[in-house]
Amino acid sequence: MNVAIVGVGLIGGSMALALKEKGIAKKVIGVGRSATSIAKAIELGIIDEALPLEDAVKQADFIYVSIPVDATIPVMQQIMNLITDKQIVVDAGSTKFALCDALKDHPMRKQFVATHPMWGTEYSGPEAAVRGAFAGRACVICEKEKSDPAALQAVENIYKAVNMHIIYMDAANHDVHAAYISHISHITSFALANTVLEKEKEEDAIFEMAGGGFESTVRLAKSNSAMWAPIFMQNKENVLDVLNEHISQLRKFKASLEKENMEYLIELMENANKIKRILK
Amino acid sequence: MNVAIVGVGLIGGSMALALKEKGIAKKVIGVGRSATSIAKAIELGIIDEALPLEDAVKQADFIYVSIPVDATIPVMQQIMNLITDKQIVVDAGSTKFALCDALKDHPMRKQFVATHPMWGTEYSGPEAAVRGAFAGRACVICEKEKSDPAALQAVENIYKAVNMHIIYMDAANHDVHAAYISHISHITSFALANTVLEKEKEEDAIFEMAGGGFESTVRLAKSNSAMWAPIFMQNKENVLDVLNEHISQLRKFKASLEKENMEYLIELMENANKIKRILK
Repeated sequence: MNVAIVGVGLIGGSMALALKEKGIAKKVIGVGRSATSIAKAIELGIIDEALPLEDAVKQADFIYVSIPVDATIPVMQQIMNLITDKQIVVDAGSTKFALCDALKDHPMRKQFVATHPMWGTEYSGPEAAVRGAFAGRACVICEKEKSDPAALQAVENIYKAVNMHIIYMDAANHDVHAAYISHISHITSFALANTVLEKEKEEDAIFEMAGGGFESTVRLAKSNSAMWAPIFMQNKENVLDVLNEHISQLRKFKASLEKENMEYLIELMENANKIKRILK
Repeated sequence: MNVAIVGVGLIGGSMALALKEKGIAKKVIGVGRSATSIAKAIELGIIDEALPLEDAVKQADFIYVSIPVDATIPVMQQIMNLITDKQIVVDAGSTKFALCDALKDHPMRKQFVATHPMWGTEYSGPEAAVRGAFAGRACVICEKEKSDPAALQAVENIYKAVNMHIIYMDAANHDVHAAYISHISHITSFALANTVLEKEKEEDAIFEMAGGGFESTVRLAKSNSAMWAPIFMQNKENVLDVLNEHISQLRKFKASLEKENMEYLIELMENANKIKRILK
């Protein structure tokens, strides 16, 4: 089939590579706002050709939208106004409620499948696209009952082909969980980078001393603001809720140190150790 | 030479393995409070035999102390009272000021080299010891001028043999930098785990959805409280200083979301992106 990838960056680019590799896409058409990115995507063999959105949609059986979440709603509305019921549209955004809500009464709603493949890195752009992405991770599908069963099946088959497992979730619930599991990690990482940059003027010391611990907690601070700022803003209420809790948890550590309360400090840490049970 | 490893856990155990592998240690004597850990260390081939502290110190040319930092000061004082000027004592603790201060007037001070190899994982105990640890990382040596030049040279050669590079630092400065680069990462990770455990009652959702981002920011929350609580407490002032800054940085993110100030949010994130320049 012909695939249009709208937004040829980390996610779209990696999906394009996977669809080619698995023999699912015959032709991959890229749609992008930046001529540089498009040229790079062609050069890297991620897409076969580039077209404006309307032309790409006309030629595509499967349209995969992977752009910043603030751009997703208007672009999706535009795409949904162009398609027939032979075409399938999928988005890969990190927030789901606002989009599902915006499209809920669209006459072509059933051709749309709302997804969030839980994979990413801190890099962005077509250069960040990698082969073998997605494998072993979960893909959330929201409001599956609003998608046409055949369209849903086709999309599930694609995610399964790239070795993801599917979990179903209400869009509002998805956004709550995503705030806990993904959005807050990014905010703490950004804030930690700012903390260290603010306090630690001796950059050589950071460079020399930073071990694996620092690098892993601060890695996400390299993430792209054009992608993440709209996610935080769109999921503002959930993110603020978790952020308030996080600040209050940090204050508990602060209080235990200020009061030199070793017992309380150890209690806080041992509670945190329970995360072992959940992670590997 | 004969080596005594006081505290056969993650660091001591990994050092024992390295010293054997590099042919530096002829015999490795382990000293530990827990019979289970000692038995495990023998079983894993990390140590050749176990002895009480006094006997181990008598037989050792080189004594490597890698125990929680609150135990380090009294144990080091005990060791320093036992040694002759043919023996070298090294500690590997994550805080340096309190120890260096406690030992500054000891008649055997010159036989002691204060070090902090900047390597670790979130695991603990002899089972956590790994071959090939330390390689490529920095080892901080504090107050080198207070150590006997021959002892210093011998210790540097050992760290260089395990492929570390040496950086020199004032003990007080070390503790400031360690707070920025290592201790705060651990606290945010512990607090983040507590946040998620507090807010996210649906543990299956965490398990299913948690991608690489969450795992890497929360990884350090698996760390051992017996090791880390004394570090935070001993480096309380520096840790509180950085923690206050971190809370204020998180509040900036909070304000940008509450006010829906996209420009400010992006500014905060782009500033954080500067960490790229410092890390790889």
